Amino acid sequence: MKEKFIVIGSNCFSGASFVDYVLRDNPEAEVIGISRSAEYKDFFLPYKEIDSNRFRFYQLDLNHQIDKIMSVVRDNRPDYIVNFAAQGMVAQSWQNPDQWFVTNCLAIMNLANNLVCEDYLKRYVQISSPEVYGSCSGLKEEEASIRPSTPYAASKACGDISLYPFFLNKGLPLVYTRATNVYGPYQQLFRIIPRTIIYIKKGKKIQLHGGGKAVKSYIHIRDVCDATLKIARDGRNGDVYHISPESGGMSIYDLVRMICRKMDKNLEDCVEMAEDRFGQDAEYEINSTKVRKELCWKPSIDFDNGISEVIAWVEKYYDELINTPMEYIHKQ
Amino acid sequence: MKEKFIVIGSNCFSGASFVDYVLRDNPEAEVIGISRSAEYKDFFLPYKEIDSNRFRFYQLDLNHQIDKIMSVVRDNRPDYIVNFAAQGMVAQSWQNPDQWFVTNCLAIMNLANNLVCEDYLKRYVQISSPEVYGSCSGLKEEEASIRPSTPYAASKACGDISLYPFFLNKGLPLVYTRATNVYGPYQQLFRIIPRTIIYIKKGKKIQLHGGGKAVKSYIHIRDVCDATLKIARDGRNGDVYHISPESGGMSIYDLVRMICRKMDKNLEDCVEMAEDRFGQDAEYEINSTKVRKELCWKPSIDFDNGISEVIAWVEKYYDELINTPMEYIHKQ
Repeated sequence: MKEKFIVIGSNCFSGASFVDYVLRDNPEAEVIGISRSAEYKDFFLPYKEIDSNRFRFYQLDLNHQIDKIMSVVRDNRPDYIVNFAAQGMVAQSWQNPDQWFVTNCLAIMNLANNLVCEDYLKRYVQISSPEVYGSCSGLKEEEASIRPSTPYAASKACGDISLYPFFLNKGLPLVYTRATNVYGPYQQLFRIIPRTIIYIKKGKKIQLHGGGKAVKSYIHIRDVCDATLKIARDGRNGDVYHISPESGGMSIYDLVRMICRKMDKNLEDCVEMAEDRFGQDAEYEINSTKVRKELCWKPSIDFDNGISEVIAWVEKYYDELINTPMEYIHKQ
Repeated sequence: MKEKFIVIGSNCFSGASFVDYVLRDNPEAEVIGISRSAEYKDFFLPYKEIDSNRFRFYQLDLNHQIDKIMSVVRDNRPDYIVNFAAQGMVAQSWQNPDQWFVTNCLAIMNLANNLVCEDYLKRYVQISSPEVYGSCSGLKEEEASIRPSTPYAASKACGDISLYPFFLNKGLPLVYTRATNVYGPYQQLFRIIPRTIIYIKKGKKIQLHGGGKAVKSYIHIRDVCDATLKIARDGRNGDVYHISPESGGMSIYDLVRMICRKMDKNLEDCVEMAEDRFGQDAEYEINSTKVRKELCWKPSIDFDNGISEVIAWVEKYYDELINTPMEYIHKQ
C-alpha cells in the first residue's frame, strides 16, 4: 500500500522515531522529513539505520519559511502530515514566552490555514501534550478542561485551539494526539532517562529536585508511534486521542532507583537532593481508553525491557554521547 | 476614594464607555486611556461630555510599543488595568488570522508577563468574549469548555489561556469578563443597532442575512460597565465572570422589526433578504448568575429604553454620522 507522509519536526526524538516506525511498518511508505535544523547526528536518528531511499529531508523553518514548506507539500501531495514541531521545555518558557507562542501557536495556525485547500490530504495530525490540562489531579479524559499552568503548556493549548476552526468550518482533516512522557533510545540527553544512565556511567551525581517526588508516567516511543500511525490512518476528524501506558505513574525517585539497580549501582551513591523546580506541573495522568477501544491499540513494550534498550543505546554510542552537550539549548 | 485606572483600548465603544462610567461613578477616580489610534471624534467618545481633567490619553500600540506602555504603567502605578484592546470582527478573521492572534493573544501575553512585577496593581481585567465557547447550544456557565469555531474566537480564547499561568504561578491579579453583545449610544456604525437606525433614516435597505434568524442577546453598555467595575473592584482572582441580560436572546429579524416600529416604519419597506454569512456562530447564551450572586449586580436598563437612547444619539449627531464610513475597516 503506497502511503506518503510529511513529518514536520523530523529531527526531534518523537518525529525521528515516527519516521523510523512508518518506514519499517509499511515497506511501500515514503516519508519526507522537515526540520528547521540540519539533520542531526546519526546516533539521534533511528531511521538512519534503515538503508532506505524512501526518506527525504528538507531543512525548512515553520516560523519563517511557510511558503517553501507549502511548495514541498503541493509538489508531493502527501496522504498524511504529522506535525511534531514545537518549542518544548516548561521551565525555560517563563523567559520570553512569546517565542513559545510564535512557534507553538502562530506557526501551526498559519500552516493549517494554508492546508485547507489541499484536498488530497487524508489527515493532519497535531502532536499536542497532556500539559494543556494543567496540574489538576485525577485521570484526564479527552474532554477535560483546557487549563494550562505554564507558558509552554499554554502555547500548546493555544495551538490546539487555533486549529479547531479550520476543521469545523474549512474541512481540515484534523486529529490531535496527547501522549504521556515518552522515552526510548535516541532521546535527547537532557531528558531524565538518558541523563540518568549517562550520569551513572560518568559517576556524576543525579539531582533529585524536591526529593524526586514528582510522579510521571512513561511510555515507550515505539508504542506511541504505533498509536499515532493508527490515529493518522483511522482517527475521527476533530477528535483528540490520549496515548498512555497501562500502569499509573512512577516517581522520579523510583525511576532513578530502578535504573541504578539495572546498572548494578546503589541509589545513594548516584543521587543528591535538590530544591523543587518552579512552575512545573506536579503530575498528571491521562486515560487512553478511547484509542484502545476505537482503534484497537495497546502498548506492547514492557518498561523494564524499554529501559534496557535505552541503556544498550547509551552503551553503543557512549563515546559520541559524552562529547555531546547534555543541557537543553534554547533556539528562537 | 482615590482610584486610578488604565484603560487599554479606550477608543473602542466598550473602552470609551467604561472610561465614561468610571469618571461618573467615582468623582475622585483618575483614568488614563491608551489606544493605538489617535482619540476618535467626540461623537464616538461619551467621556468627552464630562468636563474633566481626570482623564489623560496616550496614543500607544500594544503590538509595537509595550515598553512605552509599561513606562506609563510604572509612572502612574494604577490600581486597575482594564484591557479592551482586541482585533474584533468574526467574518474578517478568516483572512490573515495570524493578525488576530498577534493582537488578541501574543500582545496581551507579553503585557501580562510585564505586569507580574507591578505589586501595586490590584486587578488586571481581561475583556474576553462568550464566543470562546463556540456555537454549541445551551446556556453556558463560566466553566464551560473552550471550543471556539472561528479564528477571531480562537484568538480571544488563546489570549485568555495564555494569561492564566501568570495568575497561577506569578500572582497576576487577573479576572476575565465575558459579556453578550453590547449596544448603546456611541457604538461603531457597522454594528447592527446603529446601522439599522441610520439605514432607516437614510431610506437604505437593511440586509437580513439568512432571513435574520440568528439569535443574539443584547445588553446595554452601561450595565456591562457597572458589572465590569464591580468585577475589577471585588472579583476573585483567576475567575471568569459572565455578564448577560435577564431575558434570552432576540433574532435579528425581531430586533430590526422593533427598531422599525419605534421609528414608525414598516419592516417590509426597510429590509431585504440576503444569504447566510459563513462561519459565524449561530447563537449562544451565557448564564450570569455568578456576578449577580457574588457581586450583587443586575442590569437596570430596559431594552426598549436603551434602543430609544441610541435613536436619540443618532438623531443628535446625524449630520456627522452620515459623513462617517459605515463599514468595518481592518487595520493590522
